[in-house]
Amino acid sequence: MGDKYFYMKLAIQLAESVVGQTSPNPAVGCVVVKNGQILGMGAHMKAGEPHAEVNALKQAGERAEGADLYVTLEPCSHTGRTPPCADLIIEKKIRRVFIAGLDPNPVVAGNGVAKLQKAGISVEYGIYGQQAEDLNKFYFHFIKTRKPFTTLKTAVTFDGKTAASSGDSKWITSDQARLDVHHYRHRHDAILVGINTVIQDNPHLTTRLPQGGKNPIRIVLDTHLRIPMKCNLLNDNAAPTIIVCGKHTNEKKRRAIEEKGVKVKKMPSEKIEIEPLLNWLGKEQILSVFVEGGSAVHSAFVDSGFFQEIVMYMAPKLLNDRKGTPAFGGIPKQVVKDSIPLAFKSVEQIGPDIKLIVEPVERGK
Amino acid sequence: MGDKYFYMKLAIQLAESVVGQTSPNPAVGCVVVKNGQILGMGAHMKAGEPHAEVNALKQAGERAEGADLYVTLEPCSHTGRTPPCADLIIEKKIRRVFIAGLDPNPVVAGNGVAKLQKAGISVEYGIYGQQAEDLNKFYFHFIKTRKPFTTLKTAVTFDGKTAASSGDSKWITSDQARLDVHHYRHRHDAILVGINTVIQDNPHLTTRLPQGGKNPIRIVLDTHLRIPMKCNLLNDNAAPTIIVCGKHTNEKKRRAIEEKGVKVKKMPSEKIEIEPLLNWLGKEQILSVFVEGGSAVHSAFVDSGFFQEIVMYMAPKLLNDRKGTPAFGGIPKQVVKDSIPLAFKSVEQIGPDIKLIVEPVERGK
Repeated sequence: MGDKYFYMKLAIQLAESVVGQTSPNPAVGCVVVKNGQILGMGAHMKAGEPHAEVNALKQAGERAEGADLYVTLEPCSHTGRTPPCADLIIEKKIRRVFIAGLDPNPVVAGNGVAKLQKAGISVEYGIYGQQAEDLNKFYFHFIKTRKPFTTLKTAVTFDGKTAASSGDSKWITSDQARLDVHHYRHRHDAILVGINTVIQDNPHLTTRLPQGGKNPIRIVLDTHLRIPMKCNLLNDNAAPTIIVCGKHTNEKKRRAIEEKGVKVKKMPSEKIEIEPLLNWLGKEQILSVFVEGGSAVHSAFVDSGFFQEIVMYMAPKLLNDRKGTPAFGGIPKQVVKDSIPLAFKSVEQIGPDIKLIVEPVERGK
Repeated sequence: MGDKYFYMKLAIQLAESVVGQTSPNPAVGCVVVKNGQILGMGAHMKAGEPHAEVNALKQAGERAEGADLYVTLEPCSHTGRTPPCADLIIEKKIRRVFIAGLDPNPVVAGNGVAKLQKAGISVEYGIYGQQAEDLNKFYFHFIKTRKPFTTLKTAVTFDGKTAASSGDSKWITSDQARLDVHHYRHRHDAILVGINTVIQDNPHLTTRLPQGGKNPIRIVLDTHLRIPMKCNLLNDNAAPTIIVCGKHTNEKKRRAIEEKGVKVKKMPSEKIEIEPLLNWLGKEQILSVFVEGGSAVHSAFVDSGFFQEIVMYMAPKLLNDRKGTPAFGGIPKQVVKDSIPLAFKSVEQIGPDIKLIVEPVERGK
């Protein structure tokens, strides 16, 4: 206790608590300490609002002079929507700055550290660097690729089915697992489904956590604009909604949808291709997409190679049904050695179910 | 340390170390202690050889007088292949006996405890009782049902396939997971496969652990006696082998197989039914069967309801193939709420893979 790891861990916990509410900015936590006394703690709460350092230094007040500052991401050196934090740290006469991870954003990327050092402040970075990167994995991925971080979510029986061959799928997983899904909705900028899900289930795709939560932007892949005009997504005004279609679509229907205040994004190709879609979403400042697809949508992402994580809930139930709906099924691999290599990131029990998280071995796409 | 839980835990560890080599007897461990000094430790090594208590008391020698004895299963009170352990404990003037679990075998079932108490020995039981029952789950199940404990084993990709649609399945899981399978072979009395596995893979079905291991009795379900006369199972003499067939089979082929020293068990029905098969195996003193089936064999067990555990290895690989071979597929459940209820017993990482163990919620069949 009381060492640099102790305070940085606290700063990371502060940052973790706001993951999901800061996008397109990263989640950042900050702690100001002098003589083993914590003088200020803060996080960046929302894009456009003060950065973590500002909140923590404000709390510390005049006592910040000569104190140490722990921050989970390199302080910014440029004027964005708020003035540079590096300047404020210098102005407040902080003695030493401890940083978990450098900011990959090219407008910061080491400039924050350089500015502090030039002002005679001792700077150390890399303390819990991996954790800091993990908690802002959406941001890091976006800065690097300009595409959103894409998480595929599925829920299967022990025999790997998302539904019985009758189509019935209510409910494969437990209340606990279904609640867990809402944490993902809260944390991602957008949720994406295929048109079949909309037609079959007429979902709201909102975040329903006991304490509320942020609704993600709702995206529907609907090549031929088949979406029912009376569906919840077009009428509940619960969150911004985007219907993505191919180039050959009914103009009248498109206008009718847009008259409801829902955006229609027409892709330049007949079918919806994943890479251009993700590029466009990136341009729209959407840093993360949570794909609650059926097999067709998931397979499009898997076949394209553009996914960063798969979250699979598995219920201890056997349908024993070879004709049940599989979670995946796109362009098949003919032999096992050609299969898409993944790695287990975590395995967790959630109520009676388990949650498996995998990531592709070859990342970065 | 030094309390009754400490010594019983040690006795359980001794018992665990011999699971697989004592059948049809249970695995039992024993520790003899006086004044905080361990005087003797032992396990039952093999059916027909001395019981755990005999080994531990022999090691303790004359110093056993007035000592405490910790044993994982109730000492026997009847003369089987060896004289009753309860008599020996009385004769050696043991002061107190601590027992983990009572023996469900009706010829013991409390009689051992009664005999000791009648001789004035203080007896306490139920210390780590659940652990003691778990380590002898094959024995407990067999005593209760007179059928072997049946474990179904499968290895699947992340999308739940045991092979690509081309039939290729080499290898889905890692070396580490495939090694783990051999521990199961060592611990089970018998291994069971379907005839298709024999025809396709020509396996030996032996235990290949770095330190050796016990080969299980090999059982092949082969309704029409299609087994190739030149296959390894009929010719390698590695372990007792039983070919199970239906009532309409080629007598000449049956004799040819038996001339090789391999048993052919003809079932009274056309198809092989699981319940009569398990009853017969029980009569043969087979307490546990490890089913390394394909989908057809597994499904027969699942449909019958006669299985106690499923061990599923899952590799982090996506075939993305809806036509790949499923691990299960028998009499399908039409809706999710009718699916066969299981419960996760454990979830473990093994090298790059995971191992999921489930058991049916309604046990005892």
